[in-house]
Amino acid sequence: MPEDSITLTFPDGAKKEFKKNITGLEVAESISKGLARNALSVTVNGEIKDLDVPITQDATISINTWDSDEGQYTFWHSSAHLLAEAVQELYPDAKFGIGPPIETGFYYDIDFGDEPFGQEQIPEVEKKMIELARNKSEFKQKEVSKEEALEFYKARNNEYKVDLIKDLEDGTITFYEQGSFTDLCRGPHIPDTSLIKAVKLTNLAGAYWRGDVNSKQLTRIYGVSFPKQKLLDEYLEQLEEAKKRDHKKLGKELGIYMMDRMVGSGLPLWLPNGAVLRRTLEAFLRDEQVRRGYKEVITPHIGNIELYKTSGHYPYYQDSQYNPMQVDDEEYMLKPMNCPHHHRIYSNDLRSYRDLPLRLAEFGTVYRYEQSGELNGLSRVRGFTQDDAHIYCTHNQLKDEIKKTIELTQFVFKTFGMPVDIRLSFRDENEDKYGGESEYWERAQQEIREVADEMSLDYKVALGEASFYGPKIDFIIRDAIGRKWQLGTVQVDYVMPERFDLTYIGSDNDKHRPVIIHRAPFGSMERFVSILIEHFAGDFPLWLSPVQIKILPISEDFNDYGQSCADRFKEIGIRVEVDSRSEMIGAKIRDAENAKIPYMLIVGAKEKENGTVSARRHKMGDIGTFSFDDFFNKVKEENTSRSLPPNHK
Amino acid sequence: MPEDSITLTFPDGAKKEFKKNITGLEVAESISKGLARNALSVTVNGEIKDLDVPITQDATISINTWDSDEGQYTFWHSSAHLLAEAVQELYPDAKFGIGPPIETGFYYDIDFGDEPFGQEQIPEVEKKMIELARNKSEFKQKEVSKEEALEFYKARNNEYKVDLIKDLEDGTITFYEQGSFTDLCRGPHIPDTSLIKAVKLTNLAGAYWRGDVNSKQLTRIYGVSFPKQKLLDEYLEQLEEAKKRDHKKLGKELGIYMMDRMVGSGLPLWLPNGAVLRRTLEAFLRDEQVRRGYKEVITPHIGNIELYKTSGHYPYYQDSQYNPMQVDDEEYMLKPMNCPHHHRIYSNDLRSYRDLPLRLAEFGTVYRYEQSGELNGLSRVRGFTQDDAHIYCTHNQLKDEIKKTIELTQFVFKTFGMPVDIRLSFRDENEDKYGGESEYWERAQQEIREVADEMSLDYKVALGEASFYGPKIDFIIRDAIGRKWQLGTVQVDYVMPERFDLTYIGSDNDKHRPVIIHRAPFGSMERFVSILIEHFAGDFPLWLSPVQIKILPISEDFNDYGQSCADRFKEIGIRVEVDSRSEMIGAKIRDAENAKIPYMLIVGAKEKENGTVSARRHKMGDIGTFSFDDFFNKVKEENTSRSLPPNHK
Repeated sequence: MPEDSITLTFPDGAKKEFKKNITGLEVAESISKGLARNALSVTVNGEIKDLDVPITQDATISINTWDSDEGQYTFWHSSAHLLAEAVQELYPDAKFGIGPPIETGFYYDIDFGDEPFGQEQIPEVEKKMIELARNKSEFKQKEVSKEEALEFYKARNNEYKVDLIKDLEDGTITFYEQGSFTDLCRGPHIPDTSLIKAVKLTNLAGAYWRGDVNSKQLTRIYGVSFPKQKLLDEYLEQLEEAKKRDHKKLGKELGIYMMDRMVGSGLPLWLPNGAVLRRTLEAFLRDEQVRRGYKEVITPHIGNIELYKTSGHYPYYQDSQYNPMQVDDEEYMLKPMNCPHHHRIYSNDLRSYRDLPLRLAEFGTVYRYEQSGELNGLSRVRGFTQDDAHIYCTHNQLKDEIKKTIELTQFVFKTFGMPVDIRLSFRDENEDKYGGESEYWERAQQEIREVADEMSLDYKVALGEASFYGPKIDFIIRDAIGRKWQLGTVQVDYVMPERFDLTYIGSDNDKHRPVIIHRAPFGSMERFVSILIEHFAGDFPLWLSPVQIKILPISEDFNDYGQSCADRFKEIGIRVEVDSRSEMIGAKIRDAENAKIPYMLIVGAKEKENGTVSARRHKMGDIGTFSFDDFFNKVKEENTSRSLPPNHK
Repeated sequence: MPEDSITLTFPDGAKKEFKKNITGLEVAESISKGLARNALSVTVNGEIKDLDVPITQDATISINTWDSDEGQYTFWHSSAHLLAEAVQELYPDAKFGIGPPIETGFYYDIDFGDEPFGQEQIPEVEKKMIELARNKSEFKQKEVSKEEALEFYKARNNEYKVDLIKDLEDGTITFYEQGSFTDLCRGPHIPDTSLIKAVKLTNLAGAYWRGDVNSKQLTRIYGVSFPKQKLLDEYLEQLEEAKKRDHKKLGKELGIYMMDRMVGSGLPLWLPNGAVLRRTLEAFLRDEQVRRGYKEVITPHIGNIELYKTSGHYPYYQDSQYNPMQVDDEEYMLKPMNCPHHHRIYSNDLRSYRDLPLRLAEFGTVYRYEQSGELNGLSRVRGFTQDDAHIYCTHNQLKDEIKKTIELTQFVFKTFGMPVDIRLSFRDENEDKYGGESEYWERAQQEIREVADEMSLDYKVALGEASFYGPKIDFIIRDAIGRKWQLGTVQVDYVMPERFDLTYIGSDNDKHRPVIIHRAPFGSMERFVSILIEHFAGDFPLWLSPVQIKILPISEDFNDYGQSCADRFKEIGIRVEVDSRSEMIGAKIRDAENAKIPYMLIVGAKEKENGTVSARRHKMGDIGTFSFDDFFNKVKEENTSRSLPPNHK
């Protein structure tokens, strides 16, 4: 290999030789014109860089386009600069704080001085951004000394940037320029502004400088941007659809849950319809777990603080826990997790290798402190019920048990019509924050990869994303409107068996440490139900609907026949109600539609005489007249098979 | 009516005229010789008195025999005196503290000075008691002045009685004498010692004088006594049987629950078998409740302290609650009851008379502080799950709803083969501790009595036993060995609707207050399961057994056939296990018998060939060979009908 050559390794493992100091853009061009046109940044050895930075040595490389998180991150970072450029054009005295990319989009914190800035000013800024984007201004990096940087911002009376620069070390400071705008920034950025084709400024908020309530409050402008107008349109449509499906709105309308100031913040109360939904989900998972050899346990909601000192969660996670309570001469805590209680159950008996794997499951309610500003409906609460389980097994059983937990998780999400992406979160060997023996980590990561391959899973590996006690598998589900949610997790744990001194007697009659798998397919009942409500827009599958059938007698003369139909359904556990009010049939249908009840059965003289029912399906209208028995069997089959609703996307 | 006559009213409501100053004994004699022979004391206008006390005016009266709580109370009080007489004979220098009757039996606290007294001395005291009892010494009351009383005990160096007398008012002090023994005592007592035919001193303990750890520790001798030797024999047999059935012993052996020092005091952890038992009981009651129009809710285990200030439970019941936790600027408490949470759910909607009755049910886990010395297995714990419900109804619906709650409670206990006694706990009109309007109390008590009569219930009325917020109905069940347990309760509540400002819109379009019924048939899952374990001695009915069938293949060759049988049972939700170990069949049977598994199915060559099973019933041995289908149907029927075990008393 010539001395001025380097070898680059691509994401698919392919290796290729290039001349030294080649740039990311040139690498992209060497692959295809299209790729070069769409390239936004390049990741070299795990670090995202500008496309024009020379690559000086052998490296792993990936060209980041819009289709990758890294590409979007770069795109939105540059869009924040474009926002600032537009604001600077329109408000020459505005002073800029910080402007980072976020999970979806970006924001910039700006001091408008005495200048009024509100919702009315937004369209003008959006227009200016598109106008400036069309200039095709390049993002140019410039190294500056600390003195130069300070002088630059002092001349502009920008105390915020001055404040930031003071904390930086001389020799590490860079500016980025595009058009008439210069920003203190580490980058990286996209090649030029013309890639930004569509912009929407989504929100305005107040934000204290550096989050300090004693500092000045700046105006935070949130935005999102796209390389195509069509992508923005789709995004706005999704936002609109999400608003309609908002679980806080539907949760109230459908009587799923309530929040109450007097009961407390972040503590949902499950109303009758919500309790049916939750109990049905729990029964579904419980039955499935029994079938797969799990054993249920029930443990208290508090525990002696010794449990959490032993696990190491106290005092290190104290900020996310409720304060301890003094009882006699002991301290007790609301349990922030179920694990220590389960470990004590494991320890309650002498365990032999013949008893393993031992799979202990609990719908365990835990309490964690969250800032009140972070609380959000059912999706972010202070008390929630995990569909928790801990599998205690030997190292030889680990691979098989991991496979079984993946199968269970897949089965669960398939039932809800939710596609799943899988991420294998492994340790970064360069970091030494991990517990447990290296040999076990290697073996477990190897086995997890083997299982994923054997099961032909489509997975990504994320180095450095493991928990400190072992590698894990994360499940990212997509809902009906394409949003991604990280739900179920499967975690291997080498640390707690040590801390709780868990042992089993092996076939060699010696004591050994088991390994633990922590897993929770739903994650928490509260958060999962919030996602289910939005996924189905409240139009739950028959088996999950709090009321499955509403029988609507045409007049009071047919209440008896309606009731006799209802009784038949009740015998097989179908949740049915009879609307025996003296309302017109139209009103009864409207109310049942609004309550999103899957089936409405209209019964009058003809139905009573012939032993039939006239059926309507929610959102589909009339589906015809059936003999009672035919309809009964149809419902029974749909309920047992847990079919998705016919109109579900 | 002559001037020297009085009218006495008997428990059955009958009234009869007697001469003034007649004694209880004379009244008994006027009824029957047998009653006079068995009479122990008399209750006049609610107060228990000696049989020889003259009755001076019209009164309600009941003659107390051994069959009444009042009779046993008198009997055991006199037995305490007999114990003291015996001790005085044997230990002339012994000094006596207090010696009251208790729920079962009596005790006396005695200072033996330097004299050793222990278990070895007990038989001699028992013998002496019986010897003295045969003397037929009468219990004679004597009024004494405070001075005389003090002199009497100072002369005997008894600082304890002197201490007691100091607190008494002159003119109210009485002594009782029998044989050579005199005691400071208010009475009442039985006529003479000869009624005491059988005595057992059951326990010795240390007891500080007046419960003060800084005072001297006396020796407390516990005992129990009976009017017939046969009753003592039965009692000792029951004690022995109770020991065998002890839920702490069986709970451990059968894997129902565990306690763990590290998790905390009084906080049971339900092990897999216990969780199956508890979930099965919950499902049984839940289904029954759904059928009867209840709606389930689920509420958090903590609540803002405002809830308990509003209900009035804080700070007045602070001693039995866990300390509050500070969260931001609010205080939260582990909930000691579910009521306030349910009341807030009621308030969450505008309620109309059409929505009532609203029956909200929850298996709600609550936490209450108990002294660590009071904790006892599952029967006295610090965290427990109530099978709670609150029925919100109009005053017109109250009677019907009370009837329905009684029916549900009766249905529940009948399922477990537990006879139920009913106590109507009403207010004592002479006390003014009760909340709510008098008119409502009168009406509710009247309606409760009507319901009880309409249902032909065998009930007792207990005046003064109501809760402060309304009358209640208590259910006292008898277990298989005759012990009584107070379980389910139905309470009417007029106070909380006021405190929580609960309203509904009546048909008159005005706001009204609903009335609340609190009810819990099991009371708590923990305590009920402790009673169930002892009631069934761990031999649960099929439907409740954690493992219902164990299949025992004769050798490994028949594991497959065994498994195929098991799979059939699993399809209908029967809990079945296959013992596929390479053990001898005798060992497999022994292990299954020890685990108290209802059915054991032995399968070998013959069974496999013929598609049969050879069945054993726990404790009954071989019950014959069945075709698989016949046995399957038999088990299905027994499970569905919730039959009691064939060998259940």
